[in-house]
Amino acid sequence: MTEQDFTHLNSRGEARMVDVSPKEPTLRRALAKAKIFMSKAALKSLSEGTIVKGDVFAIARVAGIQAAKKTSELIPLCHPLMLNTVKINFAVDESNISIEAEVTTVSQTGVEMEALSACSIAALTIYDMCKSVDKEMVITDLALWEKTGGKSGPYKRV
Amino acid sequence: MTEQDFTHLNSRGEARMVDVSPKEPTLRRALAKAKIFMSKAALKSLSEGTIVKGDVFAIARVAGIQAAKKTSELIPLCHPLMLNTVKINFAVDESNISIEAEVTTVSQTGVEMEALSACSIAALTIYDMCKSVDKEMVITDLALWEKTGGKSGPYKRV
Amino acid sequence: MTEQDFTHLNSRGEARMVDVSPKEPTLRRALAKAKIFMSKAALKSLSEGTIVKGDVFAIARVAGIQAAKKTSELIPLCHPLMLNTVKINFAVDESNISIEAEVTTVSQTGVEMEALSACSIAALTIYDMCKSVDKEMVITDLALWEKTGGKSGPYKRV
Amino acid sequence: MTEQDFTHLNSRGEARMVDVSPKEPTLRRALAKAKIFMSKAALKSLSEGTIVKGDVFAIARVAGIQAAKKTSELIPLCHPLMLNTVKINFAVDESNISIEAEVTTVSQTGVEMEALSACSIAALTIYDMCKSVDKEMVITDLALWEKTGGKSGPYKRV
Amino acid sequence: MTEQDFTHLNSRGEARMVDVSPKEPTLRRALAKAKIFMSKAALKSLSEGTIVKGDVFAIARVAGIQAAKKTSELIPLCHPLMLNTVKINFAVDESNISIEAEVTTVSQTGVEMEALSACSIAALTIYDMCKSVDKEMVITDLALWEKTGGKSGPYKRV
Amino acid sequence: MTEQDFTHLNSRGEARMVDVSPKEPTLRRALAKAKIFMSKAALKSLSEGTIVKGDVFAIARVAGIQAAKKTSELIPLCHPLMLNTVKINFAVDESNISIEAEVTTVSQTGVEMEALSACSIAALTIYDMCKSVDKEMVITDLALWEKTGGKSGPYKRV
Repeated sequence: MTEQDFTHLNSRGEARMVDVSPKEPTLRRALAKAKIFMSKAALKSLSEGTIVKGDVFAIARVAGIQAAKKTSELIPLCHPLMLNTVKINFAVDESNISIEAEVTTVSQTGVEMEALSACSIAALTIYDMCKSVDKEMVITDLALWEKTGGKSGPYKRV
Repeated sequence: MTEQDFTHLNSRGEARMVDVSPKEPTLRRALAKAKIFMSKAALKSLSEGTIVKGDVFAIARVAGIQAAKKTSELIPLCHPLMLNTVKINFAVDESNISIEAEVTTVSQTGVEMEALSACSIAALTIYDMCKSVDKEMVITDLALWEKTGGKSGPYKRV
Repeated sequence: MTEQDFTHLNSRGEARMVDVSPKEPTLRRALAKAKIFMSKAALKSLSEGTIVKGDVFAIARVAGIQAAKKTSELIPLCHPLMLNTVKINFAVDESNISIEAEVTTVSQTGVEMEALSACSIAALTIYDMCKSVDKEMVITDLALWEKTGGKSGPYKRV
Repeated sequence: MTEQDFTHLNSRGEARMVDVSPKEPTLRRALAKAKIFMSKAALKSLSEGTIVKGDVFAIARVAGIQAAKKTSELIPLCHPLMLNTVKINFAVDESNISIEAEVTTVSQTGVEMEALSACSIAALTIYDMCKSVDKEMVITDLALWEKTGGKSGPYKRV
Repeated sequence: MTEQDFTHLNSRGEARMVDVSPKEPTLRRALAKAKIFMSKAALKSLSEGTIVKGDVFAIARVAGIQAAKKTSELIPLCHPLMLNTVKINFAVDESNISIEAEVTTVSQTGVEMEALSACSIAALTIYDMCKSVDKEMVITDLALWEKTGGKSGPYKRV
Repeated sequence: MTEQDFTHLNSRGEARMVDVSPKEPTLRRALAKAKIFMSKAALKSLSEGTIVKGDVFAIARVAGIQAAKKTSELIPLCHPLMLNTVKINFAVDESNISIEAEVTTVSQTGVEMEALSACSIAALTIYDMCKSVDKEMVITDLALWEKTGGKSGPYKRV
């Protein structure tokens, strides 16, 4: 592995937006996941109050979708992209909420960062709404799970 | 614990920006931390090339600082705040990079979300710059570590 | 009435951000309202499906709150303001949904534009989510209803 | 009509950005209109002072154009779009100013929301500049007037 | 002069937002100027067509005002600030247009960058509107001219 | 030369986003340059401290890249564009730092404004980081140097 493997840096280690001109636009899809651990009391409170639950997840979903669209503003070397779809799902477990974000585009570059940003901001939005009842929450296991499209071929986390 | 403990929701479970009018502005400080795990090869590559390393961390630091300032745009129910300072540190370990973000303000509300957002976007920026050499990276252990100022008193993670 | 009454314009008719330096910060509050008229079928659909309804209004509420925070970016001569609270309410009537936005701040200038922008974007967000079932919707009656704080004294629409 | 008609919501009533992947990009055009009613004195003041008038409308036009470009940031489930053109016109009547916004793009989805947002923010910008002379203004009749392109065929308000 | 003189960098040369907590908010003012040189033909065209001229300068003024408000988003280590006023003036000379931006705030830190950003974006907006008639334009002499408020005392360019 | 040469204005001198619908997307490239003059002491300080230098330029480069992506938000009549690459270089001379920004896209309109904005904000970011050691800095010679693609043919500054 050499420094040149860092495609976002030139041979002097300086940042650049990778030139995607030679690439063909293809359908790209990425799936990212994260978990937010919280106290049983907080989780119970969230899953019992149907209306409350609805609003907490609706707000976190909107925040995640908007973060996906804002990725190139947040992550300095990301290309602006026209996203085709953003979908965000939540599942409440005994000790945590798992968050899943799926993003697709037709583009010369992938949407991993968009899916990861969406997951991350959705998790932080849940954190924000629950922090008055639990200060010990931890956001964890944020990772890329699937990726299709692009020269490097499909990727699936195992 | 009742639904009313969720201060961002009214009694019908509807979102609101909490009214901070009755609160006095005081000095607030929050410290958040996260880790990004990556392959030894990727980490070695990062820590050997002095110049490269400099740029990767400089870019991630800028991204984190800008994310702290953008928090109220990212997290829907956060108040806009005039931040006094944002500091971001990185430490490279054998298997991961740990990220620390400290934010202060004089305000009626705390800066936990600002510190957490800064950590989160700094971590994602490192991810973005290393994803061409490692697709298995995981961002983890994002949590609040210290908090001072405000009515609820100081908080320290143990 | 003279041209000088347009406080956002100087004597040559050129735009400026009014200098608020001589003013004292006081508590300001503004209440704005709007209505969105739609077909009975669309309204029925919205008010029957409890979950759907929850999400449509939760999303529109978030959009309105975020628009209030973004007002100085949208309306060129508005001052950036630290908002204390933003609250948005919806009421479903026979032929329309009425939207109410209340904003407060402690500042040298009022929050009328913030309340009006919140109403306006909340209404447009409802429009967006219902436009697949009704293209004839009309957003109307967007106006300031109450305003307190500031030198000019309280205002109440009659 | 069923809940599934709300294309921005899935079968559980949860928000999503509609997947436009299966659609072909075609030329899309939308025309929206709104009115802002104000006192005769305010209107006269606006239409007499030629220079003032120029600046008020120039500023509102710029605000409307920028709002069209910002639509996907304001309306949570809108897709980011590369706009081909945005045009905004004003006409001063006896009791009101009418505002017209036309937007075109080549895209998989329409530009109704862009035209409506442009109208809305242009109207609010006029409001902002005139509010020192009239607090009774009302923004009204914001609606879609024409739409071409896309599978559902042309639409014309009657 | 030592590296420590760069207040935006810590002793390891790493970026930080300077901590303004120990400072008292005082009235700050900054005046920046720039020039844009263009062909006589382009200048003549601008200064003859009264209406055209009005709009070109009105648009550039709005762009400058909005850039001042956006400074902390554009310049990574700038603090977000509540601006009290932004004023932008243009003067057409034989060979160039001179641009002047004045910004004030009550804050713990100065508004030099806000005034310089406003000048810079106003100049670029004029450039954008004139580039179809002249590609040889040069923006030049962008500098701070006056600064008051703050511990370091008043500054005046000579 | 007539007023109609100002393609951003209609025949009444009113602003519009030029309609690019009739144009074919082609590969566009623009190169812009600027200089920032500062005291020998400030320049020496920058070029001696290797780490400091690295960070100052890394931060300015990121700011320039992000400004390129934000151009359509900063310059009111610019079209939003999907940029293919942004590259920014700095060269330290005896009396100044020269800044070079290159931007490419495949689009119906050119990227001059993107390259100029990137240069301009990169220069202002250097200014911001050096202003504690030198208040006399001047940003100058901001101009377009090369442009290819588009109907009007290649342009090269001489």
